[in-house]
Amino acid sequence: MTSTLALDDLIAALPEGTVVTDPDIIGGYRQDRALDPDAGMPLAVVRANSTDDVVAAVKWAAAHRVAIVPRGAGTGLSGGSSGVGGAITISTERMRDITIDTVTRVAVVQPGLLNVEVKKAAAENGLWYPPDPSSYEICSIGGNAATNAGGLCCVKYGVTTDYVLGMQVVLADGRVIRLGGPRLKDSAGLSLTKLFVGSEGTLGIITELTLRLLPPQPAKSTVVASFADVRDATSAVLDIVNQIRPAMLEFMDSVAINAVEDDLKMGLDREAGALMVAQSDAPGAAADEEIRIITEAFEAHNASEVFATDDPDEGEAFTVARRVAIPCVEKKGMLLLEDVGVPLPKLPDLVEGIADIAARREVIISVIAHAGDGNTHPLIVVDPDDEDQKRRGDIAFGEVMDLAIALGGTITGEHGVGRMKKAWLPNQVGEDVMDITRKIKAALDPDGLLNPGSIV
Amino acid sequence: MTSTLALDDLIAALPEGTVVTDPDIIGGYRQDRALDPDAGMPLAVVRANSTDDVVAAVKWAAAHRVAIVPRGAGTGLSGGSSGVGGAITISTERMRDITIDTVTRVAVVQPGLLNVEVKKAAAENGLWYPPDPSSYEICSIGGNAATNAGGLCCVKYGVTTDYVLGMQVVLADGRVIRLGGPRLKDSAGLSLTKLFVGSEGTLGIITELTLRLLPPQPAKSTVVASFADVRDATSAVLDIVNQIRPAMLEFMDSVAINAVEDDLKMGLDREAGALMVAQSDAPGAAADEEIRIITEAFEAHNASEVFATDDPDEGEAFTVARRVAIPCVEKKGMLLLEDVGVPLPKLPDLVEGIADIAARREVIISVIAHAGDGNTHPLIVVDPDDEDQKRRGDIAFGEVMDLAIALGGTITGEHGVGRMKKAWLPNQVGEDVMDITRKIKAALDPDGLLNPGSIV
Repeated sequence: MTSTLALDDLIAALPEGTVVTDPDIIGGYRQDRALDPDAGMPLAVVRANSTDDVVAAVKWAAAHRVAIVPRGAGTGLSGGSSGVGGAITISTERMRDITIDTVTRVAVVQPGLLNVEVKKAAAENGLWYPPDPSSYEICSIGGNAATNAGGLCCVKYGVTTDYVLGMQVVLADGRVIRLGGPRLKDSAGLSLTKLFVGSEGTLGIITELTLRLLPPQPAKSTVVASFADVRDATSAVLDIVNQIRPAMLEFMDSVAINAVEDDLKMGLDREAGALMVAQSDAPGAAADEEIRIITEAFEAHNASEVFATDDPDEGEAFTVARRVAIPCVEKKGMLLLEDVGVPLPKLPDLVEGIADIAARREVIISVIAHAGDGNTHPLIVVDPDDEDQKRRGDIAFGEVMDLAIALGGTITGEHGVGRMKKAWLPNQVGEDVMDITRKIKAALDPDGLLNPGSIV
Repeated sequence: MTSTLALDDLIAALPEGTVVTDPDIIGGYRQDRALDPDAGMPLAVVRANSTDDVVAAVKWAAAHRVAIVPRGAGTGLSGGSSGVGGAITISTERMRDITIDTVTRVAVVQPGLLNVEVKKAAAENGLWYPPDPSSYEICSIGGNAATNAGGLCCVKYGVTTDYVLGMQVVLADGRVIRLGGPRLKDSAGLSLTKLFVGSEGTLGIITELTLRLLPPQPAKSTVVASFADVRDATSAVLDIVNQIRPAMLEFMDSVAINAVEDDLKMGLDREAGALMVAQSDAPGAAADEEIRIITEAFEAHNASEVFATDDPDEGEAFTVARRVAIPCVEKKGMLLLEDVGVPLPKLPDLVEGIADIAARREVIISVIAHAGDGNTHPLIVVDPDDEDQKRRGDIAFGEVMDLAIALGGTITGEHGVGRMKKAWLPNQVGEDVMDITRKIKAALDPDGLLNPGSIV
């Protein structure tokens, strides 16, 4: 139990307005976008303005053995930043500086900046930050690093870790370290920068990132195709990626198509079993060749309609349709969000297996997917007032992960393990990997204060 | 002291011919390409044929508290695989399987395969494995992963870690774990795959790698330029990388030019202060634009001669000239090999500062560089029979690393720390990073048996 007196010390140690204890405001930090009903109420929320603020909060927490939940924009989908009763939440939302070096081609950013803001700042300097989670307009770059976030263009351009060259981290005891830096190559010592990417706040709190930037993405051409049969769509994916790596290759099933059409009314084919959206950003004649390969693959796999455009706005409209699929489906009921991935040849088996689980458990599972990299988001839709359906949804939630593991896949491609998927991690990685995971966690956070209950 | 009896157990535990105790053969495993004069003589060399062989050797070593030096092709340049007296060396040179999946676009390779063999196998399947250390024809893919090796194309395509999706590792106690896998996205648990890349055999022995492959590299155009003044050459580098990211941007100073010309007699300008070799692999018209930018930058910075060609063989001849620079300079004396890197804007200061050190210590320091990513290889050339010069060379060796650190750089961009650069690592990363490095090492290898003396 933390005394009021101790909390007063925390308030006094930080600039006025940094520590929030008002229950109404704290309530907004209880859950993240996973909407975990079991999320706890934080003791207090520290809205840090600087690395020094984070250090002061961590040192206070270490001294009083109070647990810490690090939080960015709170858009996590695995409960990795949901509250823990008796713990403080340290939010980095106010840490929003960015500087860009166009020679080294890096951005040095604080964690509270949104992904879209990093992209914009890079673009203003004639550069590009590729990773593009669907939530890029509302998710923070610090959260992206903490979860090793992916996105739509990752099929061609890789995930967050591929762009993190360095960082500043506050450790569990309040020490501040710098890892890596604005260097395209660095083999000095263990690859700790990469270890902290994806560690979901369990090893330290990232307070600054050095990100690699690329030249601007070339103009994109888009192909959209409808399929009556889902297996035809996923088979077309394998056919395409065996020939080229498109800049985007996205999949939506009929539930998602209809949910999006309900909202956007853009004329999607409500009768289709699946919709595929593919893009090529190859330059010049190479784009024509890629669009030809994509179109032919869709047609060869019985697409009922194929539409190609090199108009950027037209292409973007279909990308938006795919991006908003999760919030649109969310309007149909309470969601249990999956993020399972498999080696590409297993993609059709995964999508079919998920349909089997949905049928067996009598729940709706809408599948949307970054199909080109084998990463799917099955969305289990349940009526929050139907206790039996919720129970069946919970069973299906685990069965989808079991299926992915059985197919040689992963329980999370880009959202992280958080608190919601922790129970399945040992089944994927095995007890020996859990053992060294726990040992590394214990080595860096011996008192287990950092984001307890996430990952391990 | 390990008894002969104990060694008999090791020999008996492995297939005939696996354990080598013949001093003549063992002698070939004493040093790596760093030619550390202080390298120790291994007790025995285990030429493993399989992961099972590695497990048997590690379990024997753990039981008898015998240290282990993991070794690939022995081409390391930091002494990371040089022998340790009383230790066994486990060589993976016989582990040479490879399979390629063209749908997932991954190669699953054993560590003993050479980098060039991975490239060839990928090419036979219409794919490309980018990382290209200068030693790519003789270095092993396992060693590449252990050191997070770079190369010439890394300025545009990244380093080894950017291509490692998964691995099999034998831990210090003989347990075998699998990390990651043939999935383009995987956020499940700590990023242990990335932690093991660049760990130089101090955390485990990699016995299999899953590598990401790309579509074939487009045809390359080459620009070669001579400069009277070194600063002009390095300033041109900054001018170029502020506009484009070329596929290669290499630098050689006059010592290297003359050493290469002595060997290859290809008509390089022996009077030049610096030679730059740049390549573009942009497709179609984009290549012309990049070649124009490179050519104009060289001319604007007073290049005495600029030669552009889109003939692949002509371009390759200049690439070879750069690749053989280290062995050619090595013929002029004993080398102390550096691998320092800096943030790009500091490249001219680094190269000038190295010249100052050479003048002050009265030793020859030839600088060759992957200039486009700020990674340089100063080669300190000393007469092995001149003790005072060797002493001054040793001082210069440290001063070059001190200089790189002072410029915000790294003591090693792509060769690793090994045993030769260990003393400088704390100065670069700081005591707190060394502390967590030691803690992670202790968590995974509590008895300190794996590659003792490397990194920590």
